[in-house]
Amino acid sequence: MGSHGWRTTARTELRVSRGFHLDDLDASATPGYDGDKKSGAKDLALRAERLSDLQERLYAESRAGVARNAVLLVLQGMDTAGKGGIVRHVLGSVDPQGVQLQSFGAPSAEELAHDFLWRIERRLPKHGFIGVFDRSHYEDVLVGRVRELASPEEIERRYGAINDFEARAAASGIRIVKVMLHLSRDEQRERLQERLDRPDKHWKYNPGDIDDRELWQEYREAYDIVFERTSTDIAPWHVVPADRKWYARLAVQELLIAALEDIDPQWPAASFDVEEEKRRLAES
Amino acid sequence: MGSHGWRTTARTELRVSRGFHLDDLDASATPGYDGDKKSGAKDLALRAERLSDLQERLYAESRAGVARNAVLLVLQGMDTAGKGGIVRHVLGSVDPQGVQLQSFGAPSAEELAHDFLWRIERRLPKHGFIGVFDRSHYEDVLVGRVRELASPEEIERRYGAINDFEARAAASGIRIVKVMLHLSRDEQRERLQERLDRPDKHWKYNPGDIDDRELWQEYREAYDIVFERTSTDIAPWHVVPADRKWYARLAVQELLIAALEDIDPQWPAASFDVEEEKRRLAES
Repeated sequence: MGSHGWRTTARTELRVSRGFHLDDLDASATPGYDGDKKSGAKDLALRAERLSDLQERLYAESRAGVARNAVLLVLQGMDTAGKGGIVRHVLGSVDPQGVQLQSFGAPSAEELAHDFLWRIERRLPKHGFIGVFDRSHYEDVLVGRVRELASPEEIERRYGAINDFEARAAASGIRIVKVMLHLSRDEQRERLQERLDRPDKHWKYNPGDIDDRELWQEYREAYDIVFERTSTDIAPWHVVPADRKWYARLAVQELLIAALEDIDPQWPAASFDVEEEKRRLAES
Repeated sequence: MGSHGWRTTARTELRVSRGFHLDDLDASATPGYDGDKKSGAKDLALRAERLSDLQERLYAESRAGVARNAVLLVLQGMDTAGKGGIVRHVLGSVDPQGVQLQSFGAPSAEELAHDFLWRIERRLPKHGFIGVFDRSHYEDVLVGRVRELASPEEIERRYGAINDFEARAAASGIRIVKVMLHLSRDEQRERLQERLDRPDKHWKYNPGDIDDRELWQEYREAYDIVFERTSTDIAPWHVVPADRKWYARLAVQELLIAALEDIDPQWPAASFDVEEEKRRLAES
């Protein structure tokens, strides 16, 4: 598996184990990868071809009506953790036609009138597609818990509801890749500082980011509980150290490649008579 | 304007003029551009930065709630003309979060139960976004006309309806960039041949492509009528020679840049007190 700088698979290396706590993992580490920023950029470009090839096969299956699988990348993390950069630099290498990108902000009035999973379910990727959730149903047990937006009983109920929901999605053919981008408090300060220092970055800044930052430890605990309660065999969590953007991108790319390799999509067989069509083309 | 290989603007060069006929334009030409495939690839990469910067400003406006404009790229052309390649290689350089990609196939039963513009209207890009239509409402006066899917009176009605619809969309702030990818019959044969020769391309082949190919001249005429009836000052048509993929991509990139420069999106002013937030960050 260590065809490039990887000495183990990102999947093995980054999957949360029982009793895992975010505080125990260095956010600037590069687990499983022997290399630096420079080799990381090179590997990212190299492996983009593999990812792109696999994605095209998956998409081809959908066009041929034989796709039975999809991939769903769930991206979570504190503000500035780099979710947008993952979308741009990892998913940017595959055909946009095969990607369904969904961002989840604060729920609308209509969404609040339904169960918290209602808006999630309707945005699941179709067979043949890679879906990306920029934030997700996990916000309902993260900000929901930290800011007490729901009762403790309701928060409690949600972990089980999430597991049931994900099991059902998996049974329908969706490979779920859950990623928490793990940022250090110091690195977040630097990134927020940059957004405040540069007028062309002001639009990315939200005073609410500081409110969340002040609840740093509470969010850490809420994440630890999420891992404990919802990291299942069918949809395990991966924690990706994110202080080094290049590493986080490389790691998520590997996680996606692994999910697609599990699916092992194949170029669909022609649904027409190839020789007959060659004859028609020659005559046309 | 000719900062790179362009000696005029793509917009001026490619806009259809009164009395234009597709048959009069060489599909392998590279109008307005002094350069070859190699310089074209270089210019595409260079100008991708300009496009990306403009797109990010537009998207930033939407996030700040001050966007009043969007861009809509309408892509038309015969099979294999390269619509997918435009999406991938031109739009691929901008942040996927700011792009709304819509493909229009044969209408569903639900869509057929509405006016032909119903499904189009609901997929118009929101302010702050670049929308891309891979095929569009123009199919309803192209395949609709050639295959007589509607009565002559109905087809006739549609040109006016399209102009009214586009005028309304433009008034709502959408800059409409209409592009017909102009392919030669010989080049199409080669591209279809490749799809038949390569098993990994079979999924892109559809026997219906030959049916349409056999109606080549009828489609040409239907396009000529589209240009005559629907190339308006507010939403003019551009015909982009597409036998050379590198040129078509470069030209569409320039058309998008020009539309965004018309909008001239600006980094939004901070909606918060920057100094106060710096203080909060330092203390957090």
